[in-house]
Amino acid sequence: MSKPHFQTIGIITKTSDERLVHILKTLVGHLLGHGCRVLLHESACQWLEDDLGCETADLDAMGQAADLAIVIGGDGTFLAAGRAMVDHQVPLLGINVGRLGFLVDVSPHEMQSRLDEILAGEYDEDYRSLLATRVVSQNGEAVEQLSLNDVVLHIRDVVRMIEFETRIDGRHVNTQRADGIVVATPTGSTAYALSGGGPILAPSLDALVLVPICPHGLSNRPLVVHGDSEVEIRVCEQNRSNAQAAFDGQASTFLEPGDRLIVRRKKTCLRLIHPVGYDYLQILRAKLGWGEQP
Amino acid sequence: MSKPHFQTIGIITKTSDERLVHILKTLVGHLLGHGCRVLLHESACQWLEDDLGCETADLDAMGQAADLAIVIGGDGTFLAAGRAMVDHQVPLLGINVGRLGFLVDVSPHEMQSRLDEILAGEYDEDYRSLLATRVVSQNGEAVEQLSLNDVVLHIRDVVRMIEFETRIDGRHVNTQRADGIVVATPTGSTAYALSGGGPILAPSLDALVLVPICPHGLSNRPLVVHGDSEVEIRVCEQNRSNAQAAFDGQASTFLEPGDRLIVRRKKTCLRLIHPVGYDYLQILRAKLGWGEQP
Amino acid sequence: MSKPHFQTIGIITKTSDERLVHILKTLVGHLLGHGCRVLLHESACQWLEDDLGCETADLDAMGQAADLAIVIGGDGTFLAAGRAMVDHQVPLLGINVGRLGFLVDVSPHEMQSRLDEILAGEYDEDYRSLLATRVVSQNGEAVEQLSLNDVVLHIRDVVRMIEFETRIDGRHVNTQRADGIVVATPTGSTAYALSGGGPILAPSLDALVLVPICPHGLSNRPLVVHGDSEVEIRVCEQNRSNAQAAFDGQASTFLEPGDRLIVRRKKTCLRLIHPVGYDYLQILRAKLGWGEQP
Amino acid sequence: MSKPHFQTIGIITKTSDERLVHILKTLVGHLLGHGCRVLLHESACQWLEDDLGCETADLDAMGQAADLAIVIGGDGTFLAAGRAMVDHQVPLLGINVGRLGFLVDVSPHEMQSRLDEILAGEYDEDYRSLLATRVVSQNGEAVEQLSLNDVVLHIRDVVRMIEFETRIDGRHVNTQRADGIVVATPTGSTAYALSGGGPILAPSLDALVLVPICPHGLSNRPLVVHGDSEVEIRVCEQNRSNAQAAFDGQASTFLEPGDRLIVRRKKTCLRLIHPVGYDYLQILRAKLGWGEQP
Repeated sequence: MSKPHFQTIGIITKTSDERLVHILKTLVGHLLGHGCRVLLHESACQWLEDDLGCETADLDAMGQAADLAIVIGGDGTFLAAGRAMVDHQVPLLGINVGRLGFLVDVSPHEMQSRLDEILAGEYDEDYRSLLATRVVSQNGEAVEQLSLNDVVLHIRDVVRMIEFETRIDGRHVNTQRADGIVVATPTGSTAYALSGGGPILAPSLDALVLVPICPHGLSNRPLVVHGDSEVEIRVCEQNRSNAQAAFDGQASTFLEPGDRLIVRRKKTCLRLIHPVGYDYLQILRAKLGWGEQP
Repeated sequence: MSKPHFQTIGIITKTSDERLVHILKTLVGHLLGHGCRVLLHESACQWLEDDLGCETADLDAMGQAADLAIVIGGDGTFLAAGRAMVDHQVPLLGINVGRLGFLVDVSPHEMQSRLDEILAGEYDEDYRSLLATRVVSQNGEAVEQLSLNDVVLHIRDVVRMIEFETRIDGRHVNTQRADGIVVATPTGSTAYALSGGGPILAPSLDALVLVPICPHGLSNRPLVVHGDSEVEIRVCEQNRSNAQAAFDGQASTFLEPGDRLIVRRKKTCLRLIHPVGYDYLQILRAKLGWGEQP
Repeated sequence: MSKPHFQTIGIITKTSDERLVHILKTLVGHLLGHGCRVLLHESACQWLEDDLGCETADLDAMGQAADLAIVIGGDGTFLAAGRAMVDHQVPLLGINVGRLGFLVDVSPHEMQSRLDEILAGEYDEDYRSLLATRVVSQNGEAVEQLSLNDVVLHIRDVVRMIEFETRIDGRHVNTQRADGIVVATPTGSTAYALSGGGPILAPSLDALVLVPICPHGLSNRPLVVHGDSEVEIRVCEQNRSNAQAAFDGQASTFLEPGDRLIVRRKKTCLRLIHPVGYDYLQILRAKLGWGEQP
Repeated sequence: MSKPHFQTIGIITKTSDERLVHILKTLVGHLLGHGCRVLLHESACQWLEDDLGCETADLDAMGQAADLAIVIGGDGTFLAAGRAMVDHQVPLLGINVGRLGFLVDVSPHEMQSRLDEILAGEYDEDYRSLLATRVVSQNGEAVEQLSLNDVVLHIRDVVRMIEFETRIDGRHVNTQRADGIVVATPTGSTAYALSGGGPILAPSLDALVLVPICPHGLSNRPLVVHGDSEVEIRVCEQNRSNAQAAFDGQASTFLEPGDRLIVRRKKTCLRLIHPVGYDYLQILRAKLGWGEQP
């Protein structure tokens, strides 16, 4: 048996259910059978009360040691894993439990044959941009947040629009009243931005899309800018209601009037591993039901 | 001098600023000069520290005594006045301070001449539907809320869609995941529902419009139903995030999974008084900037 | 055997294929077995080269004699039959060949049992509005056209917007540049108007919806007006390109600058017969794929 | 006087009116005063019946000799000039007569001072992509068309949707029924594509946007792909109605079922010259009325 193309493999998963335990055990057995070193994320060991004969690791240790991280779950779990692995430059492979995801594109029933190919070095790959956002408060304090899908500025608590100014590379775009705005990567263009009426961006495009959410002005439209752009969203001073920001739908932060989000594409991209023949258009069709016209 | 067509006139206003004080004093003087009895809402007296020679009244007393209520302010003040006056069947006239509103359609500079006509019995009128919503919790408790514009079910706190079922007259429409849904009267169709992508409904139409907010499913569309319909929105049991409801953007109520909004058009309509020649299409054009094509 | 609830039954169909011939023969046999008098539309006899033992009739004769007209086909055939039968006040029942239609809602496989119920007087019914449009040329000549779904004003030949003015009950709505505009009944709100971004109107609503097609101005929105309204669309004089009008996607008419469409709801409604338990919301869900969220 | 930065300057204009003649004369005088050699497009000489003391040239001669082409007119005239000059690599400057255009961004009243700066070598510039489309008929014949804004596939004559398949780089995207589809450059994203519901693309973005026009399927969305992509649109064989294609709204070509449009970004870009301080966002705001919220 030849040495596997990826030798140390991390496994990340989130929730436990009957079906997932079976998939996980099958996966671990298959990888060990290939002679891989397998690092199981510690949270999985906890609910399993079993390490399945693998080493256990936290995300940081896994990031340092792994050649590939396999995510079992849905797109949400994959997003979190992506944010954790990007700085370690560990590529990701996603196995979907339940419905096909945009990111978790290997079905459990084909998992073993697909892995045989991938471990033999036969796979497709693509690179996805992430967003690095600085949340800058009026007193100058800044927190940085990472997202693979999107940054969302949104109203908080009550149904009252917020007013915010958008700038691209320091240039004023507009000041608008709305429920919020989404800044999304191409990966995120099929997530919340799409519900807000945004376009779909091909994954390889070096671009960001800004989608206003329920804008008060009827002529506001989604805006697609170069991936190098610095997007600044400032909550206007005269707002009576506060705002919040979310990153991949997580880590909600409150923003006061005058606070700003400064969004840039992260320099390092995330590498995704896919079975040979990967076609994001096929996933789009399946997810958006494009075959089934009324 | 002939007897004024409306003899007892209530005046409702909300905020105080220099300009408004001047308008208010002019209005009161003009009405007293016509021989009207003027009831000034108590909140105005408070910040004025002066009753301008009028009687003062709370909303209930005004509702019982007045033949006409004049609202000075914006659409928000008018909405609140409308909810307060509808059961007393007191008609409303709106004077806008600042920008033209959809509801407050008399400009201060033409206020006196317009009132001369109206007090002489020359005016247009139209009738607006309100919504009476019962918020029914799982244990059966119900609270009733009134709105002239809309009822909004919306996500709370975090950026996580809610799942809810919509029923019309007891029939299942759909179960969707979205940021929320608006049920609007024709009056409310130009407010939040429009930001959500809803159509404009002629004010006289006996209809309600349901507009999903950022729906996850791409084929969800606004739905216009008969004004007699009972619209039921039920927050699905499996939601992890809570929801909230707002009525004319006010009186936010939290909803737990399983709670329901049961929306019906209120039996009594609100009567609006307009200067002769009222044309809601003209207001639409002015507010939506229809003259100014890119 | 009791007398059938509908005694003289017309059958209208359009195209011939193997499957349809089988359905038609089954239907005729079933109706004759119930003691009905069956009138087969002459076009069917022609391609069948057989009258199946029925009398044959043209649409006018059928309209005068029939108690019920059964349409076998798709929504397009149903629309034509509806326009032909409405003045004779003959109710319609639709049997779909192929896909479920919005209007042809009886499946061939349940046709016989459904007809047993309907002929026993057990059925649901609803009434649909039609549009009567006068196409008025600048010299005053007028042609009248009927439609059950919609009237569409559209650019002709080249990709160049037209400018037109819309009036409701003689009042100016706006003048816009666009590819065109749709005026649709509630029945037509799920047809072309929906592709143009219009809302869905409940079939029973006494309303019309105006949907601009690719408007140049970004703040133009669908407008829902009372069914009693007179909608006038006038092709502006300064247009360099001509326009065309279509009625239910048929009978295309060219319009010169200055020509007008004057659209009113037809006084007589069309009566539709459905199997007991008819639920248009169920058809909406099936046609729009509302169960299948991405 | 130093030598002008651009020495040989072509002038292209289209229509004649009083105001334009004045602008044209002022411009020519100003350029000659700077010591430039001025080439006046022959069509202008024709309606002027005067060459204003310039040499006259057809587009080809102008393309070969000019260092800069100045367009006086609207965006339409600029588009035509751009298509004519791109292969000669002559940069373009636009002077708007009438309304501000997206492309013609110098106002006549500031024309002289702006030209002084530009001829002194002080200007901004940007590069715009064009589309080179091959119209391939079923028998293999191909015609090539150029466009700066967009390629539009559209229904012809009657209001009947066409069915077409879209492929990106040889990969199937979807087959949809619609009134048509727009493939637009970033420059064209603010033209017809915007009316069809497309997003705005920053001019510098190396991308194309595909916008379906009135799609029958409700889940079709605008798609933004890399500028390198080959976009193929094939009119499906089963269409009963024919289609047409337009390039920058011109040069309409009929397409039969089976015919294809193969769209690629042109290798050579068009260079636009702007006064110092050019800001496309400012033009966007002015044209889309972003300051004026309802």
